[in-house]
Amino acid sequence: GFYFHYWALFDGHAGSGAAVMAAERLHLHICEQLRDLVDILQDPSPPPICLPNDVKTGVDPNRVSEDDGDVPNDAVPRFHLEKAVSHESLVIGAIENAFKHMDDQIERERGSQHLAGGCCALAAIYLMGKFYVANAGDSRAIIIRNGEIIPMSREFTPETERQRLCCFFPQALLRPELLGKEFTHLEFPRRIQPKELGKKMLYRDQDMNGWAYKKIEEDDLKFPLIYGEGKKARMMATIGVTRGLGDHDLKVFSSNIHIKPFLSCFPEVRVYDLTQYEHCPDDVLVLGTDGLWDVTNDKEVAGVVMEVLTSYEPNDPCRYTMVAQELVVRSRGVLKERGWRLANDKLGSGDDISVFVIPL
Amino acid sequence: GFYFHYWALFDGHAGSGAAVMAAERLHLHICEQLRDLVDILQDPSPPPICLPNDVKTGVDPNRVSEDDGDVPNDAVPRFHLEKAVSHESLVIGAIENAFKHMDDQIERERGSQHLAGGCCALAAIYLMGKFYVANAGDSRAIIIRNGEIIPMSREFTPETERQRLCCFFPQALLRPELLGKEFTHLEFPRRIQPKELGKKMLYRDQDMNGWAYKKIEEDDLKFPLIYGEGKKARMMATIGVTRGLGDHDLKVFSSNIHIKPFLSCFPEVRVYDLTQYEHCPDDVLVLGTDGLWDVTNDKEVAGVVMEVLTSYEPNDPCRYTMVAQELVVRSRGVLKERGWRLANDKLGSGDDISVFVIPL
Repeated sequence: GFYFHYWALFDGHAGSGAAVMAAERLHLHICEQLRDLVDILQDPSPPPICLPNDVKTGVDPNRVSEDDGDVPNDAVPRFHLEKAVSHESLVIGAIENAFKHMDDQIERERGSQHLAGGCCALAAIYLMGKFYVANAGDSRAIIIRNGEIIPMSREFTPETERQRLCCFFPQALLRPELLGKEFTHLEFPRRIQPKELGKKMLYRDQDMNGWAYKKIEEDDLKFPLIYGEGKKARMMATIGVTRGLGDHDLKVFSSNIHIKPFLSCFPEVRVYDLTQYEHCPDDVLVLGTDGLWDVTNDKEVAGVVMEVLTSYEPNDPCRYTMVAQELVVRSRGVLKERGWRLANDKLGSGDDISVFVIPL
Repeated sequence: GFYFHYWALFDGHAGSGAAVMAAERLHLHICEQLRDLVDILQDPSPPPICLPNDVKTGVDPNRVSEDDGDVPNDAVPRFHLEKAVSHESLVIGAIENAFKHMDDQIERERGSQHLAGGCCALAAIYLMGKFYVANAGDSRAIIIRNGEIIPMSREFTPETERQRLCCFFPQALLRPELLGKEFTHLEFPRRIQPKELGKKMLYRDQDMNGWAYKKIEEDDLKFPLIYGEGKKARMMATIGVTRGLGDHDLKVFSSNIHIKPFLSCFPEVRVYDLTQYEHCPDDVLVLGTDGLWDVTNDKEVAGVVMEVLTSYEPNDPCRYTMVAQELVVRSRGVLKERGWRLANDKLGSGDDISVFVIPL
């Protein structure tokens, strides 16, 4: 077998149930997915495309006997193109499926376990010389190496996932049980007022990146599927993140429209190969929830990392914890007369803030 | 009014009708879309989100009278967020809609005009200090500035558009009139043989970037929606490009399944602001069909550009034409005993090759 190291942040919304369960179980699902791959990942040759028959799988015996000689897969002549699949992409697939199984488990047990709400999930897995950073939601991970910032995730919000959602919307509009008749997939720069009917207004549809003018019709007065910008963008006026675990019972306010079919529980996984670079004790992977990143940008985080690390001995095991604490404290700010303020006098983060600082 | 400059390549397949018509008409559609924007684009203030009522549009008179005072749009109080829309994104929207109208025209007139097949379209529009490069298909544009290569398009093939197609496929599978029951949206590294039923094979579904193993079932023996790699990748075993004009009658071989619903006629538009950089006479925009790029990479193209341009006087108007000719000739190769060969002895391009070299 082999070991993997694992860190993860779960930022809950609308209840803590899903976040708590994911924190207790996601690593077990990752373990389970990787278990079947132990031999394959340790074998330096490329992963076999087809595994030998598993006698326990209860395959139709006629089929088995047809293939009776148990010819090794490699001996079968191949007339077709064959795609090369790397060990790395097997690990990515295992992590993706682990998120899916975690989400399925929350769905199954949410009634009996009273698992309310949903959560963003950001997990870092260190396995065989590589970091796999899996993100579903609006948390964020960066690597700081020799002062350079390397983004290890991107945020999934109604704005960043416009393309995925827009592929889905026109299809969903054909299925009233998914979308009702309350939404329009057209995007306008602002809400339209009923008295603007017949005027020409800027719009774009799912295929467009640019904008054009159209005459406003009755249908355009429906609520837009994606509305608002930046941190205030909401899908179906309900949720600001488009990936994550849980949320199986989430509905559009005062309606029977479920949000879950439009969310994705699948993370984007980015890989960082530690063996490709030399690292010093000041090189770190930083994981943080949106409470951190809303008020502190990549460069400011890198600045705090450098500042705090240089004030401790390189072999002091506390130095990484102190960076994480400092990042939280600075993002929260100080209570002044006009609320919590940062050092630059901007408003501090009112959200919860969780940070991991992991030496590379 | 204003002028725009326009260059475009149309690479036809399955007949020349669509390509010829697009070559004759696309610029007229762009003209028509831009005509309404003349005043707005020349006004330095941001484009109005809502235009004043157009008396000719035949709006319900009750509605019009309700808004009778003809209050300028800016005087209406705004309680909502408003998105900023730039002049640039209006031009992008105009070009996108022009491609759509071009495609609609080919659909309408294909019967009477005998317009066979479809085409990739790559258009470069110079307007008010900016180049807009619009691409739908597998042609390609790059800018070479001071020896640096700046990609101005990306190719749209079953492989590069996996995400868009995969959003669409699961929905389409629910509508038998779109997909029949002949395809699976799961991807396997190679075709599965019937005798492999019950074995475990690598797969990925639309939500995955990684790969995992699954037990092969009957359904997995269906033909994959996307099959093959690189230049040989095909959607539904039929077409190697996923965007373009025409193809309204294209069907999967010996079936009644139409391909068109899966294709997109919308281009991706990239913008290059000429006013942001200093340019010398050797800085160019190169447009080429896949016949060029299949055998000659960006760096080789940049090398030929530099080599040929330096052999002519900087004010010789022929020098850009000579670059284009040289690029075509070198990509075609020389007929030897073992077929058409490039200088490096690799096979020359057997495809048609069209190239524009445009000084910046």
